[in-house]
Amino acid sequence: MRERRDPDRLAQAGQLAMLLEVSASPKPGNVDRCHDYPDTRYEDFLASSVAVYPVLIRAASSRARIGRLIFEAVSASKTWHKGGNTHFGAFTLLIPLITGGGEQKAAHDAVKSTGWEDAIEFYRAAQIAGVRVKPVEDLDLTDPESFDRIKRERLSLYEIFSISASYDLISNEWVNGFPRSFRYAEILRDDVRRLGLNDGIVMTFLRILSESPDTFVAMKFGADVAREVSERARVLTRDFDLDKIKSFDEELIERRINPGSSADIIIASLFIALVRGWI
Amino acid sequence: MRERRDPDRLAQAGQLAMLLEVSASPKPGNVDRCHDYPDTRYEDFLASSVAVYPVLIRAASSRARIGRLIFEAVSASKTWHKGGNTHFGAFTLLIPLITGGGEQKAAHDAVKSTGWEDAIEFYRAAQIAGVRVKPVEDLDLTDPESFDRIKRERLSLYEIFSISASYDLISNEWVNGFPRSFRYAEILRDDVRRLGLNDGIVMTFLRILSESPDTFVAMKFGADVAREVSERARVLTRDFDLDKIKSFDEELIERRINPGSSADIIIASLFIALVRGWI
Repeated sequence: MRERRDPDRLAQAGQLAMLLEVSASPKPGNVDRCHDYPDTRYEDFLASSVAVYPVLIRAASSRARIGRLIFEAVSASKTWHKGGNTHFGAFTLLIPLITGGGEQKAAHDAVKSTGWEDAIEFYRAAQIAGVRVKPVEDLDLTDPESFDRIKRERLSLYEIFSISASYDLISNEWVNGFPRSFRYAEILRDDVRRLGLNDGIVMTFLRILSESPDTFVAMKFGADVAREVSERARVLTRDFDLDKIKSFDEELIERRINPGSSADIIIASLFIALVRGWI
Repeated sequence: MRERRDPDRLAQAGQLAMLLEVSASPKPGNVDRCHDYPDTRYEDFLASSVAVYPVLIRAASSRARIGRLIFEAVSASKTWHKGGNTHFGAFTLLIPLITGGGEQKAAHDAVKSTGWEDAIEFYRAAQIAGVRVKPVEDLDLTDPESFDRIKRERLSLYEIFSISASYDLISNEWVNGFPRSFRYAEILRDDVRRLGLNDGIVMTFLRILSESPDTFVAMKFGADVAREVSERARVLTRDFDLDKIKSFDEELIERRINPGSSADIIIASLFIALVRGWI
């Protein structure tokens, strides 16, 4: 993992990050190697991770637009599996991180240089991924007029994310230069050293979930539920107690509460830790 | 999965075959998504599948020697994980299958055209993989004189495999033109349609194991144990009974009996089924 600018190495770190994330178990509420959701199976995540590899290579080696690459990643992913959305948020973080060669400043520069074309491609990608995106100002995905306005007003994806950054974890990473992704990469390194690979990933996931209400949960169940889930996760970060984590997992699955944004962040952190040879 | 000659598509089918094989559970005796061996974890198989991708691309697009590609695949795999041997037998099947574009005759032609250089590279690959290979005639991996003899007598890898084909499942595939890999690809297609992806893979695995004593088990525990394991697997292929398969799995794990060669065959069959768009 030494030559950071080697496109294959960067793409492989991104792919392995996705595979390790979905495999880590029990990862409360999310698909993992021991349980599926009825509409999205573990194998859909494997297929999506395989499908996206050529796009990750392009992200590492070309000057293709970030919005375009996100669109291509989602398209490739959907060609290979029939499950629901698997990696939309993860691609949104991984692609600029890979474009930036795994370096924080370069990744921030990459997202700052996005234009209105990126915004259009991003919204198209969200549509084919079947992701619900909360309207930013009046920009509603389901309204074709929004696309016209993006073009007319030359709204860059970075500008749009600046508005959603206050409530959306992924936008927040873009706008503030990936602070959580990099901070949790270090925490992950320490958790993995202490607890081993699987349990270390589970522990860091709980820490991410406990720090901020999960955007995906907030969208689906409201802010109160998202806060409650984070509170519950916080208690579990005190000690690694497998039985307690398992019951929390079972409860969230039962309520169909899947903290997808926290999973996206840990994929970004896993990528950074892999590129640095930390795990 | 339509453009069979697209290098990315072939490499992706190979990679996904490896991921689906190791994930299918319970796969009696082998590492799967629900249990590790102490020296080789599930995550080692994920890392190996990620590591080998660029070599699979080379197999699909270049005229590099098959022995060389097997050596490169094992080297890449060992760089990315610290577990024991993960995919040595699988690479030995997958690489000629990919070189042949997923076509049976082309794969057979590819292995028939191997030379003594392939034999040298193959034995070197076995050494770094830490695989025990039963001496063929007097060709013993641990004896440097064997390498001299291969070179002196211009013994091709295909010729060496012709001798081991009587007792080694992988050699047998090479010499007879991959009969099991292709036959079980069709059986797999039907099992997956009937039982779903995970259980279909488990069922076909049991069928492979029941048909021929597993070479890896025979090497480690002798022919009697290998025959007993196959007999036991045969009973389980009558109906898909998850509880019975689970107990068989637990027993084999306890006895440390891992039918690695049957796992290699099913990876080859998964690859063929994926290339044909059957699963």
